[in-house]
Amino acid sequence: MRLELTPQQKAAHAGYRAFVDEELVPRADAFDRDERTPAEIIRKLAQKGYLGSVVPREGGEAPADMITYGLLHQEIGRGCSSLRSLVTVHDMVAATVLRWGSPVQRERWLPGLRRGDLLGAFALSEPEAGSDAGSILTRAILDGDEYVLDGRKQWITYGQLADLFLIFAQCDGAPAAFLVERSTPGLTTVPISGMLGFRASMLAEIHLKGCRIPRGHLVGRPGFGISHVATMALDLGRYGVAWGSVGIAQACLEASIQYASERKQFGVYLQEHQLVQQKLTDMLTQVQAARLMCYQAGYARDARDPQALVLTLMAKYFASTAANRIASDAVQIHGANGCSPGFSVQRYMRDAKIMEIIEGSTQIQQALIAKQGCQWFARC
Amino acid sequence: MRLELTPQQKAAHAGYRAFVDEELVPRADAFDRDERTPAEIIRKLAQKGYLGSVVPREGGEAPADMITYGLLHQEIGRGCSSLRSLVTVHDMVAATVLRWGSPVQRERWLPGLRRGDLLGAFALSEPEAGSDAGSILTRAILDGDEYVLDGRKQWITYGQLADLFLIFAQCDGAPAAFLVERSTPGLTTVPISGMLGFRASMLAEIHLKGCRIPRGHLVGRPGFGISHVATMALDLGRYGVAWGSVGIAQACLEASIQYASERKQFGVYLQEHQLVQQKLTDMLTQVQAARLMCYQAGYARDARDPQALVLTLMAKYFASTAANRIASDAVQIHGANGCSPGFSVQRYMRDAKIMEIIEGSTQIQQALIAKQGCQWFARC
Amino acid sequence: MRLELTPQQKAAHAGYRAFVDEELVPRADAFDRDERTPAEIIRKLAQKGYLGSVVPREGGEAPADMITYGLLHQEIGRGCSSLRSLVTVHDMVAATVLRWGSPVQRERWLPGLRRGDLLGAFALSEPEAGSDAGSILTRAILDGDEYVLDGRKQWITYGQLADLFLIFAQCDGAPAAFLVERSTPGLTTVPISGMLGFRASMLAEIHLKGCRIPRGHLVGRPGFGISHVATMALDLGRYGVAWGSVGIAQACLEASIQYASERKQFGVYLQEHQLVQQKLTDMLTQVQAARLMCYQAGYARDARDPQALVLTLMAKYFASTAANRIASDAVQIHGANGCSPGFSVQRYMRDAKIMEIIEGSTQIQQALIAKQGCQWFARC
Amino acid sequence: MRLELTPQQKAAHAGYRAFVDEELVPRADAFDRDERTPAEIIRKLAQKGYLGSVVPREGGEAPADMITYGLLHQEIGRGCSSLRSLVTVHDMVAATVLRWGSPVQRERWLPGLRRGDLLGAFALSEPEAGSDAGSILTRAILDGDEYVLDGRKQWITYGQLADLFLIFAQCDGAPAAFLVERSTPGLTTVPISGMLGFRASMLAEIHLKGCRIPRGHLVGRPGFGISHVATMALDLGRYGVAWGSVGIAQACLEASIQYASERKQFGVYLQEHQLVQQKLTDMLTQVQAARLMCYQAGYARDARDPQALVLTLMAKYFASTAANRIASDAVQIHGANGCSPGFSVQRYMRDAKIMEIIEGSTQIQQALIAKQGCQWFARC
Repeated sequence: MRLELTPQQKAAHAGYRAFVDEELVPRADAFDRDERTPAEIIRKLAQKGYLGSVVPREGGEAPADMITYGLLHQEIGRGCSSLRSLVTVHDMVAATVLRWGSPVQRERWLPGLRRGDLLGAFALSEPEAGSDAGSILTRAILDGDEYVLDGRKQWITYGQLADLFLIFAQCDGAPAAFLVERSTPGLTTVPISGMLGFRASMLAEIHLKGCRIPRGHLVGRPGFGISHVATMALDLGRYGVAWGSVGIAQACLEASIQYASERKQFGVYLQEHQLVQQKLTDMLTQVQAARLMCYQAGYARDARDPQALVLTLMAKYFASTAANRIASDAVQIHGANGCSPGFSVQRYMRDAKIMEIIEGSTQIQQALIAKQGCQWFARC
Repeated sequence: MRLELTPQQKAAHAGYRAFVDEELVPRADAFDRDERTPAEIIRKLAQKGYLGSVVPREGGEAPADMITYGLLHQEIGRGCSSLRSLVTVHDMVAATVLRWGSPVQRERWLPGLRRGDLLGAFALSEPEAGSDAGSILTRAILDGDEYVLDGRKQWITYGQLADLFLIFAQCDGAPAAFLVERSTPGLTTVPISGMLGFRASMLAEIHLKGCRIPRGHLVGRPGFGISHVATMALDLGRYGVAWGSVGIAQACLEASIQYASERKQFGVYLQEHQLVQQKLTDMLTQVQAARLMCYQAGYARDARDPQALVLTLMAKYFASTAANRIASDAVQIHGANGCSPGFSVQRYMRDAKIMEIIEGSTQIQQALIAKQGCQWFARC
Repeated sequence: MRLELTPQQKAAHAGYRAFVDEELVPRADAFDRDERTPAEIIRKLAQKGYLGSVVPREGGEAPADMITYGLLHQEIGRGCSSLRSLVTVHDMVAATVLRWGSPVQRERWLPGLRRGDLLGAFALSEPEAGSDAGSILTRAILDGDEYVLDGRKQWITYGQLADLFLIFAQCDGAPAAFLVERSTPGLTTVPISGMLGFRASMLAEIHLKGCRIPRGHLVGRPGFGISHVATMALDLGRYGVAWGSVGIAQACLEASIQYASERKQFGVYLQEHQLVQQKLTDMLTQVQAARLMCYQAGYARDARDPQALVLTLMAKYFASTAANRIASDAVQIHGANGCSPGFSVQRYMRDAKIMEIIEGSTQIQQALIAKQGCQWFARC
Repeated sequence: MRLELTPQQKAAHAGYRAFVDEELVPRADAFDRDERTPAEIIRKLAQKGYLGSVVPREGGEAPADMITYGLLHQEIGRGCSSLRSLVTVHDMVAATVLRWGSPVQRERWLPGLRRGDLLGAFALSEPEAGSDAGSILTRAILDGDEYVLDGRKQWITYGQLADLFLIFAQCDGAPAAFLVERSTPGLTTVPISGMLGFRASMLAEIHLKGCRIPRGHLVGRPGFGISHVATMALDLGRYGVAWGSVGIAQACLEASIQYASERKQFGVYLQEHQLVQQKLTDMLTQVQAARLMCYQAGYARDARDPQALVLTLMAKYFASTAANRIASDAVQIHGANGCSPGFSVQRYMRDAKIMEIIEGSTQIQQALIAKQGCQWFARC
C-alpha cells in the first residue's frame, strides 16, 4: 500500500496544474459565455501533448500510466469541463484506432491523433438512443467496396470541429463501428447551442446522407461495434469523466474555501458559521473520497485487473454525483454572487449536471454496478 | 377542516392557468435566452390585474385572499420564474406603500402600482449585504427638505425597468426606507446579465450619487426600515417565492410525466423503469407536500395568525429546497434532451437554484425557523 | 379552504392527548423493555372507545370522521407505536367485517370488535410473502360445510393476544379471506420476540394445521380476498401507519426541542448551535408537511374522493420516511443519552424503521405511487 | 501509488477474517441479546494478540503498521461492534501508557495490556460532558503523596470488566489524566444496560468517592490531560471507529447481497429489482469509498504525516455516516426479516448509530474538519 504519487506523477501533475491555472482558469468563463473553444487553446493543448496521450508517442515511448492520465483529466476538468471533454472523446477515438484499428488505419490516423492535429469525435448517441446504445438507427450498407451510411447522430462533443468521427451504425443486423473523415461527402454537421453545461464543447448533430466510405474504414465489425469497440471506448470515457468530476469538485472546493474566508455575514467570516463549515467539511471529504475512487480505478487499469471496469463505473458514479452536490453547495455558499457571471461556481454547477448524464447516466450505473459488483466486492 | 379550493378560488386558478399556458409557456424559454421580458407581456399582466393584486382595486374592492394570491404565484412561476419575480417584488413595494405609506404617498403611487403602469422594485441588497440586511452601507442624509442618498444596490429584480424603487439606507445611524422614482437625478441603473437563473428578470445595479428626494418620500423612519418595512415586505416576498417554487416543481413534474410516458429506453417506456418511478413518486409527493405547506401559510396569513410568519418561512424553505431536488431529477429523467434548449427543464433547474438564495437563503432559514418555530410547533 | 380542526376535532384531539400523556408516555418504555402490552392498558383503550372506532357505535352513532380518526392514531403513535399498531390492525379487521361481512358475521363479531372486548388481528404475511401479497401459500379447502386451513402466518401484530384472525388463504386457485377465532382447533400461535421495533406489539406466528372453520366464516370469496378485502384493509392500515408516523415524528420533535433547550455544550445551549438548529428546522418543517399530507388523505377519505387511495399511499410514504430521518436526528441531538434507556428517542428510532416496512415497504410505494399518481396529480 | 495490501497485510487480514467468521459471526447476536461479552472470547482475543497490538511485543517487535491495525478493526467490527469497541478503548489506554507513561508506569502496566490480561478503559465522558471534553467536573486534589479523585464517569465502554481506567479530572484548574486500578478503594462501577447499540460492550458508570491513588499514577499533568493525552487517544480511537464502521458496512453489504440473491418478490429475485440494485450499488460504492478513506488515514499515520489527524477525522466522519445509511438500507432490503432477531442487520443498524456519536459526534466533525482541513486540502 503506497497512497502517494510517484515523483514523476507529481511532476506531471504540477505541469498540468500550471497549464490550467495559466491558460484555462482565466478564460474558461469566456469560452462558456461565447459557446466556443478558440482554436488556439486546442493548439496549445496539442503542443503540450495532452491530446491523445493514451497512445504511445511516435518514437515508441510508452503512454502515460493511468494515474497520470487521470490527473490530466482532473486538472483540465478543474479549469474547463468543455475542454476536458475534448481530451476525453478525442482519446476515446485514438484508443479505438490503437486497439481495434487495422495496420492501415493505425498508420493513417494515429500520428495525427497523437499529435492532436487531427481531432477525433465519438458518434454513438442518436435522437432516440442515449444510454441505450443498442437501439441506434443509423445504418451502413456494403455497396461494392464502400459502405453507405445514413442516419443522424446527436450530442456529438466537438462535432463542430472534429476531423475524424467514430460512427456506430447497424450493419447486417448488428452494430458496427466506422471511421469517417469530416470531408466525406454526405456528412454534414449542425451546431447545437444553448446547452445547460459544457457550453464551449462545440456540440453538433452529424447528418449522414448516402455517405460513402471505403470498406477499409470499418473498425469494429457487425456485432462487435457496441460489445467491444463502444464498450472499451466508453470505459475509457467514463474514467475521464470520473476524474473530470473530481476536477469540478476541486474547483468548487477551492472557490468556496476562498470565498468563505473573505466574505463576512453578520459580522463574521462565512467560514465561522457552522452551516458553512458543514458544507466545507462535506466538500473536503467527498472530494477526497472521489479522488481515491479514481486512484483505485486507475491503479486497477494499470494492473489490468478485471475489476477495473466496475471500479471505473463506481468512480464515475461516485464522483459525478458528488460533483453535483458539491457544486450546488458551492453556489449556495457564494449566495447571489454564486449565480452571477463574475464567479465560476455557477458554471461548475451547470457542467456538473452533464456529468450525471454522459457516458451512462446515474440510473444506468445504479443498475449496472449492482449487477457487476456484487460478485467481486462482497469481500475485500 | 376543508382542504379544497372554493369555487371562486378554482375559477381564479383556472384563469391564471389559461393565461400562463397561452402567454408564458410558449415564450418563456425565449425570454430566458434573450435575457429580457418584452414590455408587451408586462402590459398583459397588468391588464389582467395580476400586478399589485395585494392592494384593493380603486373602487375599494377587497384584495385577493392569500390562497388565491398564492395560486397566481404558482401559475406564473410554473410558466416563467422571471415574470413571477416581477409580480413578487412589485407587490412587495405596493404592499409597503399601502401599509406604511403616508396618505400623500398612497395617493401618488398606489393607483399606478395597482394598475401595473408603475413598476416597483425592492432595493435592499448591496454588494456586501445580502441575507444580512442590517449591514447595508447606502446612506441617506437629511439636507433641508430633502434626503440625499449615496450608495449602491445590487441584484435588483427588474431594476432595468422599474419606475419606483423602495430603497433602504442608513440614516441617523439606523436603517430607513425611501421611495425613489427612477427619474430622480443621481439615480442610474446598470443592467446585469449572464446570471444562472431568472435570466429574463432584467436585473440591475442601482447607483445613487447625491440622489436628492423630497423629505416626504421617507416611508420607514430610521430604525424602522428593516425591522418593520423590510421585514413585512420580505415576509410577503417569501410567500411569493414559496408558491413560485411550487410552480417550478409542478412544471418539472408535468414535463417529466409526459416525457416518461413517451420516451423509451431498452424497449420500455421510461415510466416503467423503477428508478424513474421512484423519481416520479418523489416529485408527486413533494409537490403535494410543498403546496400544502403553502396553503397552510396562506390560510394563516388570511386568518392574521401570528404563526403566519414562521409558516411562511417553512413553506419557503420546504418548497425551494424541494424545487431544487425535483428540477435536478427532471433534467435527469430527460437525459441529454433535458440539458438542451429544446426542453424547459434545464431552465427550471437554473431558476430553482435562485429560489434557495433569494429572500433569505436556505441557511438563514435553517437557523431562523428553529428559533421561531420551536415555541409554537412543539404541539399541534 | 379551511385548514383548521373543527371544535369537535380539537376536543377529541385534546382527549387523546391527555390519555396518551397520562397512560402511555410514562409507561411505553417499560412496555418496550418487557416486550408486552399489559392487558389493563388495552382495557383502558377499549373503555375509551379507541378500539374499533371506525365502526358505528351500537346505538347507530356515526363513526368518527377520518381526520379525528387520524388524530387518534397520531396521539397513540406519539406515545407508543406498539399500541398504535393494535388500534390499526384491530380496526382493519373491524372495518372488514363491517364492509364485507355477512349479516351473521356482523352480528356475531362487530359488537365485540366495537367494544374492544374482542381483539382482531390481520393475518396476511407469510415467511415467503410480505409486500407481495399474492404469493401466499396458506391453503383453504372446502370440505362439506367447513373450510380446512393449512399454512403459516408470520409477523402477526398482537397475534399473541388476538381473539379473531382475518386470515388470507389460497382457495380454488385464488386468494380468499376467512375469519378464524383463536379457539379454533388447529390454530396455534408462537410468540416472536427480540424485534428491532414495535417490541410490545406481541407479535406471533400463526400455525394452521387442519384448522376447520364453518363455511360461513368466509368473508372474501376466492379471487376477492386480496383484490378487495386485503386492499381495503391495507388502505385503512396505511392511513393509520401514516398518522402513527407523524406521532413518532412529533414525539421526536418535542423531545429534541426540550433537550436542546436544557443541555449545554461548549457552554452554550444546544439550541444555539446552528447544526442543531438545522435539525430542529428540518424536524419542524417535515412534521408539518407530513401532518398536512395526512390531513389531505383524511379529507379525501371523508369526501369519498377516488384519489383517497393514492393520497393515503403518499401520506404513508412521506410520513414514514420523514419519521426515520427525524428519529435518527433526534437520537443525534441527544448524543449518548439518546442511545440510552433513559430517553425514549432510541425507541422512536427503532419503531420508525418498522414504519418503512409494514403495509407496503418504501420501495413498493415508490413504484406504486408513480403508477397511480401520474394521471391524477399532473395538474392540481 | 500502490493501492494494494502487501502479502503480509493480506495474510494478517485473512487471519482476522477467519477468526471473526469462526468465533464472532455465529455468536455476536447472542452477545447482543445477553448484553454481555463472555470472558472466554476476550481470552481468545488476547491469545491471538489482538488486544494492545499498537504496543510493541515484549521481545521488542514492532507494532503492526496502521493499515494492518485498521484491518483488524474492520474485521472485528464486521463481526461484533461491541468487541471491536473493546479493542479500540483498550488500545487507547495502552497507547497512552506507551506514549505518555513514566518508565515505572510502563513497566507496571504495559506487559499486561499487551498480553490482554489487563483490560484498559477510557474514562472521559461524564453525565454533563460528552463531545465537549473540556467541561468535565471530576476533580483530583493532591493530598500528600496521593491524588484524591471525586466524580462520576459515564458511558465507559467495558467499564464493567476493565482492570485499569484512564481517568480525566480537573486538577489545579486544568484537566489532567490518571491511571486508576479497578481495585482502588472508592472506585465503584455501575453497569448500564438497555442501550440502543453496542449492547455487549458492558458499559458502566464509574463512581469515584474519595478515591486515593499514588501520585505516580498521574499520566498527563494538569493542562496536558485533554490537549495531549485525550487528544492522542481519541485520535487513535477515531481511527478504530472509522475502520469499525467499514466493518459494519461490509457486514451489511454481504448480508444484503446474499439475501437479495435468495429471496424472491413478485416472482423475481430481489437483486433483479432496480430499487434493490440501486441500494446495492450505493452500498458497494460507499463501502469502497469508506475503506479508501481509512487506507488513506492509515497510510498518513504510518508516514507520520501531520495531515493524519484530519484524514482520520474525515475517515471517521465518512465511514460512520455511510455505515448508517448502509445499515438502514440493509434492513430495508431484508424487510420484516431484517427487523427480526434471526438476521443480524437490525443489530448492525443499532450499532451503526453509535458510531455517529462516539469519539466526537458527526456534528463535531462537521465543524472540526472544515477548520482543520481547509488549509491542507485546498490543493491536492
